Amino acid sequence: MIKVGIVGYGTIGRRVAMAVSIQPDMHVSGILKTKPDYLAREASRDFKVFCSDEKALNNFKEAGMPCHGTLDNLIDDSDIIVDASPEGNGKKDLEVYKAHKKPAIFQGGEEPSIAEASFNAYSNYNDSYGKKYVRVVSCNTTGLARTLSVVRDNFGIEHISAVLVRRGADPNDSRGGPINALEPSLKFPSHHAPDLKTVLGNVDVNTVAIKAPTTLMHVHTVQVEMNYPATAEQITDLLKEKRRILLVSGKNGVTSTAQIMDLAREMGRDRSDLYEIAVWKESITVKEKRLNYIQAIHQESDVVPENVDAIRAMMQLANQEESIAKTDASMNIGKGAI
Amino acid sequence: MIKVGIVGYGTIGRRVAMAVSIQPDMHVSGILKTKPDYLAREASRDFKVFCSDEKALNNFKEAGMPCHGTLDNLIDDSDIIVDASPEGNGKKDLEVYKAHKKPAIFQGGEEPSIAEASFNAYSNYNDSYGKKYVRVVSCNTTGLARTLSVVRDNFGIEHISAVLVRRGADPNDSRGGPINALEPSLKFPSHHAPDLKTVLGNVDVNTVAIKAPTTLMHVHTVQVEMNYPATAEQITDLLKEKRRILLVSGKNGVTSTAQIMDLAREMGRDRSDLYEIAVWKESITVKEKRLNYIQAIHQESDVVPENVDAIRAMMQLANQEESIAKTDASMNIGKGAI
Repeated sequence: MIKVGIVGYGTIGRRVAMAVSIQPDMHVSGILKTKPDYLAREASRDFKVFCSDEKALNNFKEAGMPCHGTLDNLIDDSDIIVDASPEGNGKKDLEVYKAHKKPAIFQGGEEPSIAEASFNAYSNYNDSYGKKYVRVVSCNTTGLARTLSVVRDNFGIEHISAVLVRRGADPNDSRGGPINALEPSLKFPSHHAPDLKTVLGNVDVNTVAIKAPTTLMHVHTVQVEMNYPATAEQITDLLKEKRRILLVSGKNGVTSTAQIMDLAREMGRDRSDLYEIAVWKESITVKEKRLNYIQAIHQESDVVPENVDAIRAMMQLANQEESIAKTDASMNIGKGAI
Repeated sequence: MIKVGIVGYGTIGRRVAMAVSIQPDMHVSGILKTKPDYLAREASRDFKVFCSDEKALNNFKEAGMPCHGTLDNLIDDSDIIVDASPEGNGKKDLEVYKAHKKPAIFQGGEEPSIAEASFNAYSNYNDSYGKKYVRVVSCNTTGLARTLSVVRDNFGIEHISAVLVRRGADPNDSRGGPINALEPSLKFPSHHAPDLKTVLGNVDVNTVAIKAPTTLMHVHTVQVEMNYPATAEQITDLLKEKRRILLVSGKNGVTSTAQIMDLAREMGRDRSDLYEIAVWKESITVKEKRLNYIQAIHQESDVVPENVDAIRAMMQLANQEESIAKTDASMNIGKGAI
């Protein structure tokens, strides 16, 4: 059993902790928190909570909450660390993991250069096999890589042009925005284009990102110039055959991200999450070699199974197919259409 | 002086009434209202208010508000009608105007087949010259036609691919939505693609539309495959030379639609409107023959100068250049960059 330490217990960290805890070949050695807040209290029911430093240790003591040691102790108790601390912390943390000679996974908010490889289970699992430092790409890049790898593997990709309508803030974020405006990223292409190349190979890709006042999901419109012509039926069938992709349809009442996330609640998933990328069936249109589709990304959770697979790749626990199958079976991640 | 009757005094009708009232060659013969609400009261300070029928006449009487007659009287007092009644009413209204042998302008919510020509001042003014029934295309199509006609006229258009992030509701609409979701149009292409062809000619165009929880503006990401290569500087200079297009920049603090509409308030325009299409300078990027840019559309007002020009074209009052210049001078519509 691989011992996995989780550093950071925010949106991603707490979900990865849960996912790791239900795998047959790994368990959670502990999670690291900086503050004795409501999340620390909830976490302490399921996991050993460690504190970031001596000062945090005192704060936990004052709050009457258990703390099993500091970051150094957690690292010593772990075979591998999943670092889900706030964006930009990774570089500093990396030095600590290196000093302890422990492998670590970083999240998509960090620069690609922080790791030996960027990771997406479908598009480049093997690039991280046996590696010590790996970065799981962001929720948006994960969503693009997952569906686009299917297109790449079957029809080739000449050019990708994607528009990302991004959620302004996560559901637990009362500081984010905008509250009544549309805010384009004024970097062209947006950072998603180079990020996608880290996992999909050197494709010609342009991305534009626009923030919108919503908390539920991102929505992507994707246009692909393929190397070979295809039909909408072929693309639909291929996407339907992949787990971690869910075809949805307005005909069944799924006309916006509101119904997709409502569907996730009905599915009874942990935290009402949707790990799958939702693709609108009617949006899959092809004109010769030009493919268009629209997909929605649950930004809080699509990277969670990816982190689990990254652990297996790095620790050489399973090959690509075995790992994905194991993760998906444990998390009840399916395929197909609703 | 051409006598213009305004049927419908909602978002568009009241703005066209104001714009017509400040032209040197036309004036407002009256406006038609169905209910004696706050808008009718405000309207009666500036315009002769007519009531839709005998029943409405009674309602106005009971509310103690003046009413100068019914629809028939307004039509008789007018040389031309601008019909800005709710979407879908046009077909019924057209029969009334025909019975009175009066020319009429309809709005973009109506089917193109209602009129002899669809209208955009830049892209096809002459198609409506001397015509009796004309339709001014919608705010979104107007925005696309205005900037794309510049591209078409200078470098030719092979293919257009546009993603429209639409405002969920207008500022005065408390019933619209979504309130916290992204809702794609599940018609592919969205209705904007065929609508654009009615004014831009038979171009190869694909449009995707997504509703977002905002009231201020629509945002378009536009990708054009041009017939001939251009540079970003050439495109920027051409857009800068056109009135009704305003280049904005994140460098000057305009990073979202919130600042654009705040800028409009500073400009002191009637109702704090922005008639110009705002294009983000830094978004204009070119890779050989592929052009990308992002623009924002003030959905309440960009069609207002178009309605004025449509009147001139139909009544043969001026040619394209003269009409646009006259309208823009009266409404203080400029060009350039901020």
